[in-house]
Amino acid sequence: MSIYALDTKYGQAIMDIIDQKTKPVGALGQLEQLALKLALIQSNKQQSLVSRISINQPTALVFAGDHGISEAGVSIAPSAVTRQMVLNFLNGGAAINCFCRANNIALTVIDAGIIEPITESDIATAAEQHTGSASFIEQRLGAGTNNFATMPAMSIEQVKQGIAYGEQIANQHISLGCNLVILGEMGIANTSSAAALLAAVSKCEVEQCVGYGTGINSQQLIHKTQLLKKALTRVQTTDAFTILSELGGFEIVQMVGAILASAKAKITVLIDGFIVSCAALIAKLIDDNIADYLVFAHQSEESGHQLLLKQFNATPLINLGLRLGEGTGAALALPLLTACAHFYNDMASFSDAGISV
Amino acid sequence: MSIYALDTKYGQAIMDIIDQKTKPVGALGQLEQLALKLALIQSNKQQSLVSRISINQPTALVFAGDHGISEAGVSIAPSAVTRQMVLNFLNGGAAINCFCRANNIALTVIDAGIIEPITESDIATAAEQHTGSASFIEQRLGAGTNNFATMPAMSIEQVKQGIAYGEQIANQHISLGCNLVILGEMGIANTSSAAALLAAVSKCEVEQCVGYGTGINSQQLIHKTQLLKKALTRVQTTDAFTILSELGGFEIVQMVGAILASAKAKITVLIDGFIVSCAALIAKLIDDNIADYLVFAHQSEESGHQLLLKQFNATPLINLGLRLGEGTGAALALPLLTACAHFYNDMASFSDAGISV
Repeated sequence: MSIYALDTKYGQAIMDIIDQKTKPVGALGQLEQLALKLALIQSNKQQSLVSRISINQPTALVFAGDHGISEAGVSIAPSAVTRQMVLNFLNGGAAINCFCRANNIALTVIDAGIIEPITESDIATAAEQHTGSASFIEQRLGAGTNNFATMPAMSIEQVKQGIAYGEQIANQHISLGCNLVILGEMGIANTSSAAALLAAVSKCEVEQCVGYGTGINSQQLIHKTQLLKKALTRVQTTDAFTILSELGGFEIVQMVGAILASAKAKITVLIDGFIVSCAALIAKLIDDNIADYLVFAHQSEESGHQLLLKQFNATPLINLGLRLGEGTGAALALPLLTACAHFYNDMASFSDAGISV
Repeated sequence: MSIYALDTKYGQAIMDIIDQKTKPVGALGQLEQLALKLALIQSNKQQSLVSRISINQPTALVFAGDHGISEAGVSIAPSAVTRQMVLNFLNGGAAINCFCRANNIALTVIDAGIIEPITESDIATAAEQHTGSASFIEQRLGAGTNNFATMPAMSIEQVKQGIAYGEQIANQHISLGCNLVILGEMGIANTSSAAALLAAVSKCEVEQCVGYGTGINSQQLIHKTQLLKKALTRVQTTDAFTILSELGGFEIVQMVGAILASAKAKITVLIDGFIVSCAALIAKLIDDNIADYLVFAHQSEESGHQLLLKQFNATPLINLGLRLGEGTGAALALPLLTACAHFYNDMASFSDAGISV
């Protein structure tokens, strides 16, 4: 099934509704464009102009995976931290847990392929001590990827399986009523994978795509850049599946699947920072129409993110100097989408309010 | 009673708490500085390091007033719209109502001096048809200010009374448990008053301070600039009370009072756009220490706002191209303060989570 490009036939009617609200035309700035996008997606889904934007069961899907390239010293943290952070998610203690609680977002954590699986006993302990912190799903593609500096990160079969897994978890939530999918990720060294993917797809210089991640030094950045350049000599294709198998991470592959499924279902996807945006870029390579369904939440501090956003011509909603991932930027931006729904749905028009402008 | 300058002695201990959270140091960017500020204010109030940031009964006080200079054609809308918008607030139909509902903010609308008072019957109708939309308080300083292009906007007595009124309404909410005051305003032509006040205090050229407001054209902008220049020739003082009496608006004067009272009570004030920031600038002229208690919510499209923010060395939280006032930018930013409280209060430390970084 291919992805439906949004029909803009409802656009003028939506803008008329927005322009009739009791405010000077355009006075809500970027929120007006956001309300237009949300209303356009929902009008297309319903095949009729929506008078209300609904945000139902917003759900953060946070995909975790480990990266073989971590062994090459491209991150400040060892791979073991990926698993420790997954446990932190299950125990409700990470930033994404806090922001999901703050903004009433359901949280599902997916093991897409961390090195050492979470045990039954880990899950039981978390469930006992921290009820309702996060759901946990295991759909592993392996025990971390291969080191893509020297060999393909994974097989084409793993890519296909990963996309299917990502589609499956998104569809499951959508079928239960979720109409806003929020994506996040955790994976030590995944800025290396994302930067390489960005370079492969955009054809930009690796130097423009790499960044300091969670805080490597200049020496490490040079090393990271060299490894990526070496890997990229292997990749002379525009085929998304091949690119993913060469450079991808398990969490990135599954996010590509989640984005494709959401767009197929005509559901809005709220995109977090650098890594999630990179998954969106790959999804766009598979089907250009997915861009119609994406809202970019924030501008990350990671330097390649600006370049990535340019591929979508996107202006993100917030810019707070975040460089954390996990879906935190997206979770923080959700109240702006909710605010759009409130003003589109409930704000008086000039004629309602009897105002003489 | 003067305003207490925040003692930064708790600063290091607060940053230690933030730095021990399970994230790379600094990865939450500007939110970390915001959490520091909120925790510093509350630690000073309690005279001990707070382990939790609390946000209690956040309340938007929206002050409305009319401006004599409106008669000179400095706005796209006639003064009658101020009153119509106050009724819209009472009926729950304005953008600020929508954003307060979205973010659980209590809303109080204050008639600080619009031309034609709201009637008992208006209030009864609103209460009947739109329960709980907004509280309404009448503390009028007059039926709109004088046209400050040709004479002082108000008397020194009116300034003093206005500040007392503003203090009174803020203190009333603070005494009931509110510890976060959100300020907003409505008043046709009040960007003229704010731009003149900014020029008087900053000594910057009027051209740098004025802007298009809700949408005047270039011709009107030249006219507005000329009127302000003429008025400013009368103002050769650094006395805040005199400056306010010459150029102020009733809503601006009362917001100055609300800011002073909140800072005296060691309460955080969330500042909206150009007009509210201008009230903050005047409050700072009265007591430099108030800056310690202010959080700037957003960067407005009104061109003088950037200059105003520079007077405080402030980087606002959001930048969405808003130019609406009413407190809308502040109401939209509140979830970021709430998110700060959540992460400061509940996020696991490295030792809590057993993470090896």
